[in-house]
Formats: sequence, structure tokens, C-alpha cells
Amino acid sequence: MNEMRAEDRKFLKELNAGTYALVLLSVVSRAGEPTYGYQIAKLIDAGGADVPMMKQGALYPVLRSLEKMGLLESTIEPSVTGPPRRYYRITEEGRGALERWSSIWRANKSFVDSVLKGTHHEE
Amino acid sequence: MNEMRAEDRKFLKELNAGTYALVLLSVVSRAGEPTYGYQIAKLIDAGGADVPMMKQGALYPVLRSLEKMGLLESTIEPSVTGPPRRYYRITEEGRGALERWSSIWRANKSFVDSVLKGTHHEE
Repeated sequence: MNEMRAEDRKFLKELNAGTYALVLLSVVSRAGEPTYGYQIAKLIDAGGADVPMMKQGALYPVLRSLEKMGLLESTIEPSVTGPPRRYYRITEEGRGALERWSSIWRANKSFVDSVLKGTHHEE
Repeated sequence: MNEMRAEDRKFLKELNAGTYALVLLSVVSRAGEPTYGYQIAKLIDAGGADVPMMKQGALYPVLRSLEKMGLLESTIEPSVTGPPRRYYRITEEGRGALERWSSIWRANKSFVDSVLKGTHHEE
């Protein structure tokens, strides 16, 4: 990945910027219990994507932004092994957004795929 | 679409920001001959997506940015029916980027889909 060209990195970055919010909302929703940054990153890594799709440092601004929108809520809990941790859970509002965003994602995906397949021209 | 919630509009906007460059590169590449903004918008609209994925005004900054990266090149041609038009064609460099970006897009798509399907947790 380090050999990626500048324009490819830019493309990947912009692509990820759009999907991070959806990915995080989904992971926090599925975690089943309040979860914190490092756990979230591990849940995402477990997917084992070939391309490193999400760096841990990229999580926090997106989590904060989702909380600001009222889609996640958080509490700070002490930890026996280190500094206090901020635990996130999804709100009712967040569950609604996750459903709507999943459907926007599917529509966007089929739009892009139909352009790439050239169906606009061959039909 | 006008009734979309603010957070849904934000999500769609960020999603589109990532895919516009790929969509435009693909459409200009498939056009077969140099093509201009309005033609490109019509080619995209022909896909008939339910959600208006790309407004015409959004095309121009992306076309300019792709040209700046050397992935498209353009010439201005007079038009008998109105002001001169800027015609875009894809460069060799652009064809390479289209291929690489298509593969980044597929990897990103399967990453997001695998998170949404919850395979990270159920396996």
C-alpha cells in the first residue's frame, strides 16, 4: 500500500470518508454492548480486508461526529489497566439512520456499478 | 428527496464525493469521443437511478480536478448553438487510474458489505 500513487491514495481517502460513518454505526450497533475505540478497531480489522480500510486514528473524529448528530451516545468509564475509556452505544435515532444509510449505500453502489459496467451506453 | 433528513443528506454527499471521480472517469472513457459537461450529465442520467446521484453543477469541479491530475485532458471548441464548449477525453494515465480505482472500489465495497452483513462477528 505504501507504493500507492498519490492519486490512488486520494481516491481511497475520499471513498473511505463517505463510508466510515456507515461502517462505525453498523459496528457499534452490532457490538451488542457499549464498546470503545480499540474494540471497534479490532472488530473492523477482523474483516481481514486486503486493503487497510480504516486506521484506528480515523475512528475517533467519526465517532464524535456521530455522537454530535445524536446517532451514538457515550459514557466514560474507568479502566483498571489504563486511562478511562469512552464507551459508545447506538441510539434509537442511530438505528433509524443505520437503516436509511444502508439503503442509500445500496442505491449508490448499484449506481456506480451500473456506470462501471457501461449499462448506460450499451442499453 | 427534499424530505431527506439533514444527516442523510450529509451521508449521501460524502458518499458521492468519493465516487464522483470514478464515475466521471468511467463515463468519459466510455464516451468513445471527446465529450462535454452536458453530454456527460445526460450519460449519467440515462442510468435512471431512483436517487439523483449527481447534479450537473457537481460535475465541473471534479472534471477540473481530474484534468489537473493528468487523468483527463480537454480542448475548447466553438459551438454553433451557444458559447464554446470544453471537451474532455481520457488520457493513458487516466485509463490506468480507472483500472486501479475500479479495483479499489470493489475492495471498498466488499469491505463495507461484509461489515453491514455482520460477518465480522458471526464467523
